[in-house]
Amino acid sequence: MTVTYAYEALPVAEWFRRNREIAGFQNPARAMYQTVRELVENSLDATEPYGILPNITITIKPVDEAKSWYSVYVEDNGVGIPGHEIPNVFGRVFYSSKYKIKQHRGVFGLGLKMVVLYAQSTTNRPISVRSAAVRSDKIYEYRIMIDTTKNEPIIVDMREYENKYKWHGTAVKVVIEGNWLNSKKRIEEYLRRTAIISPYAEIYFKGPDMEMFLKRRTIKIPPPPEEGLPHPKSVDVDTVKQMISESKTATLAEFLINNFDGVGEGLARSFLEWAALDPNKPVGSLTQDEIVLLVEKMKAYEGWRRPRADWLSPAGPELLEVGAKSILGAEAVFAVTRKPSSYSGHPFIVEAAIAWGGQIVPVDKPILLRYANKIPLLYDEGADVARKVVDEFNWQNYKVKFPAPVAVIIHVCSTKVPYASAGKEAIAEIQEIEEEMKLALRDAARKLRIYLSRKERELELLNKYTSLAKYVDEIAHNMAIVTGLDKDALAKSLYKLIENKLGLTVEELAKHVLSMASSIKEEAAEQG
Amino acid sequence: MTVTYAYEALPVAEWFRRNREIAGFQNPARAMYQTVRELVENSLDATEPYGILPNITITIKPVDEAKSWYSVYVEDNGVGIPGHEIPNVFGRVFYSSKYKIKQHRGVFGLGLKMVVLYAQSTTNRPISVRSAAVRSDKIYEYRIMIDTTKNEPIIVDMREYENKYKWHGTAVKVVIEGNWLNSKKRIEEYLRRTAIISPYAEIYFKGPDMEMFLKRRTIKIPPPPEEGLPHPKSVDVDTVKQMISESKTATLAEFLINNFDGVGEGLARSFLEWAALDPNKPVGSLTQDEIVLLVEKMKAYEGWRRPRADWLSPAGPELLEVGAKSILGAEAVFAVTRKPSSYSGHPFIVEAAIAWGGQIVPVDKPILLRYANKIPLLYDEGADVARKVVDEFNWQNYKVKFPAPVAVIIHVCSTKVPYASAGKEAIAEIQEIEEEMKLALRDAARKLRIYLSRKERELELLNKYTSLAKYVDEIAHNMAIVTGLDKDALAKSLYKLIENKLGLTVEELAKHVLSMASSIKEEAAEQG
Repeated sequence: MTVTYAYEALPVAEWFRRNREIAGFQNPARAMYQTVRELVENSLDATEPYGILPNITITIKPVDEAKSWYSVYVEDNGVGIPGHEIPNVFGRVFYSSKYKIKQHRGVFGLGLKMVVLYAQSTTNRPISVRSAAVRSDKIYEYRIMIDTTKNEPIIVDMREYENKYKWHGTAVKVVIEGNWLNSKKRIEEYLRRTAIISPYAEIYFKGPDMEMFLKRRTIKIPPPPEEGLPHPKSVDVDTVKQMISESKTATLAEFLINNFDGVGEGLARSFLEWAALDPNKPVGSLTQDEIVLLVEKMKAYEGWRRPRADWLSPAGPELLEVGAKSILGAEAVFAVTRKPSSYSGHPFIVEAAIAWGGQIVPVDKPILLRYANKIPLLYDEGADVARKVVDEFNWQNYKVKFPAPVAVIIHVCSTKVPYASAGKEAIAEIQEIEEEMKLALRDAARKLRIYLSRKERELELLNKYTSLAKYVDEIAHNMAIVTGLDKDALAKSLYKLIENKLGLTVEELAKHVLSMASSIKEEAAEQG
Repeated sequence: MTVTYAYEALPVAEWFRRNREIAGFQNPARAMYQTVRELVENSLDATEPYGILPNITITIKPVDEAKSWYSVYVEDNGVGIPGHEIPNVFGRVFYSSKYKIKQHRGVFGLGLKMVVLYAQSTTNRPISVRSAAVRSDKIYEYRIMIDTTKNEPIIVDMREYENKYKWHGTAVKVVIEGNWLNSKKRIEEYLRRTAIISPYAEIYFKGPDMEMFLKRRTIKIPPPPEEGLPHPKSVDVDTVKQMISESKTATLAEFLINNFDGVGEGLARSFLEWAALDPNKPVGSLTQDEIVLLVEKMKAYEGWRRPRADWLSPAGPELLEVGAKSILGAEAVFAVTRKPSSYSGHPFIVEAAIAWGGQIVPVDKPILLRYANKIPLLYDEGADVARKVVDEFNWQNYKVKFPAPVAVIIHVCSTKVPYASAGKEAIAEIQEIEEEMKLALRDAARKLRIYLSRKERELELLNKYTSLAKYVDEIAHNMAIVTGLDKDALAKSLYKLIENKLGLTVEELAKHVLSMASSIKEEAAEQG
């Protein structure tokens, strides 16, 4: 047996270039979709959190149809990137805006670089970037590639010029191998669903054979999420060790107060007393085992405050209802925004909406629309924990018998969405999130059940009324002959009788039937 | 609007620690399964390719039940790791055995480090490693952690001692937060399926409440895959650029001959003539655009040889049939190993088997068993291109009407399996692979159709025979009374008559019915 032992370190950029499938760049169609997605999400992250109403232009053009080369251009009116940072932001893997606990669409700081690496591998063309930061005197233009063996940007060329009109924003152009035919529908669907959950954005999209303009439908922009500290309930040992290495001289009490969300003097002392730990001990002197113990106790303690919701920016029930009605043409929508919860120190909120009837075609299992931090997720539904929750849900308990006209929207927002792959298309099976999804679905389904029960009762009432009312004319006619009284007057008193018996007048009944949907919904909302 | 611009680079190990979900470490149950998987695959990769019959021992023990801490221990008799390389192999992300074009189970060089990072984040315990390389005089023991900010190993302690009995192999122990209850079934299933496709391995597994011994069923080990060069048909621009930078002075012809699979003098010249490129031009003098052109031509050229199969180690039809029959208790199995094909310079082979009847319960869509480089894939079936291919397959054309007792095995082996995530549970949608899967399935389904048609005919024949035969006794009885002849003799001649009419003796028919399954299968195999 001859065995040769040889080892080497692979540069990080080269690793990602070779393994681009894991970031969603697995074939030309999917890569084209992923490119649009990464660029649009960067544009939304450069506008919305700063209170800027997003204006986004996307253009896809064939460059060489024989080779399936396309240019993808995305421009926004965001905060821009300072000139000297542009090469690193586009040309160095794992370099991005500073890591903060705050909800944003981009999580891996990887998307842009994957776009650059994909362009490089397929067409060998550099990415073109034009950007100006807010109040910048200059506009910067760069053409950049990545040296994958060194993980460094290669500046192919650059120029700067006067920013006469104080423009700010970023425009990016890449030439990639794509497949327009097979990605067109997904890209359109992606932009449409984006516009639904971000109706304050204005999106113009021009493809090789089509044009689409998604108008701004409101100028109300949700309050930007704030930055925050991790929640003490469930940080891990390694994170705490890193925090300690940055503040060695602090006492245990100070350390907790300064580094964690919602921990004041009183709460820190209560916790440390409960945990039998000395509040005045400097954290720098803790042994490895003591740090492990501290983290265990932090996990076990039940007295912490709930994570703050102001880091997160959920859509809210009204927006979800408007969205679901407008895409799906539903008869009724029941939406729920859960209170914040947390996993591994990251707060998250689950929202769910159940859409019923109307234009929804009855199906054997519910249609599912998935969102994460307002990003529509279109691929890999089978790998998403939301699909599992919806499939395992006991719909029968809520009066839903399949096939039924039902669709479900599930939105997770978090300072860190736990995606199951770097392609960001499916949410991983995190127990805390799965649990919240179940509860959100249950809350929404309860409202649906009230609606469906009420509808059943109304239908019963209506059937009862019509089954009696259809004899009124004949009875009145016969009675009129026998008694010599006026037939119409008799009919009227007979109707009266039926109405009294049912506890409703005809007008009331009619009105009631007409306004059924909205009135029941309100009631359900109050009870929910 | 106040905008703060702040950017930073995140160290690679820290990035993976924070994003461990993408490598399959998303909750304690899944992380436990993933840990076993990564360690077992390393063990198989350290034995089988070197012609060593694998002996693998896996032990899972509770360490602290209140905290859900478990130790996972995996030991093998593989080629081991040289002592001085152990810290880097376990403690540095993207450091691994030299990148070669050769089929192996581990692809990302990431699994081991993710196990170490996960242990570190949950229990803060180092990984324990004991290893000796082949013919090493010493056995090395290390306890290692990873400094995630520097991506460097931390050696907690180490010792070395004499290797008296010339042992070689590796034993690894980690303490992790796990969930035995929820991972038990998956781990058992994973090991069982591993034993099916690698019957030359001996696997002993002891869990907290069970024990499992998977005996070696053959000592025939498949020939180890050889190392090779990339196939010229579909390498990308970046790869070619890197290759050129390592051999600048070579002429175009030399460059092609030395760097690509199956390219000799004649073929290189034919190609370059076809592409109108000068064979004597030094590759170092090619411009960017000329390199792009070269790669395009290489993609477009139809004259290359098929990629060599000796890099790959498929299971083969017999092994698949044995496997499918033993797991599924099928009545019949039809297996196909396709010829090698390639995507992006990586050769691959698709194998498919269709199992029918027996203990397989009729289902609405086929049960699917997925394998990649002999690794069973258990999670994320919905995201796997194999599931798509099986679901979109036109089963009706092959006499399969659902519900039907049918199961499908699909095995992809390649020098680089394109996983859709670093968790290695689903194969990405690569067009070339999808196409081969379709063809493999079609080939296997044709054999199934022959089998089912023949079965139908046999059944018809049998029905015809029995429908005639049931009157023999009565007719013989009546004829005996009328003719005075012996009833048994009459019956015998009547049976003869029927047999002649059907062209078979009773014995032949009986034999035929009994041996139907095997005889038809052979015939189908010959015809397929």
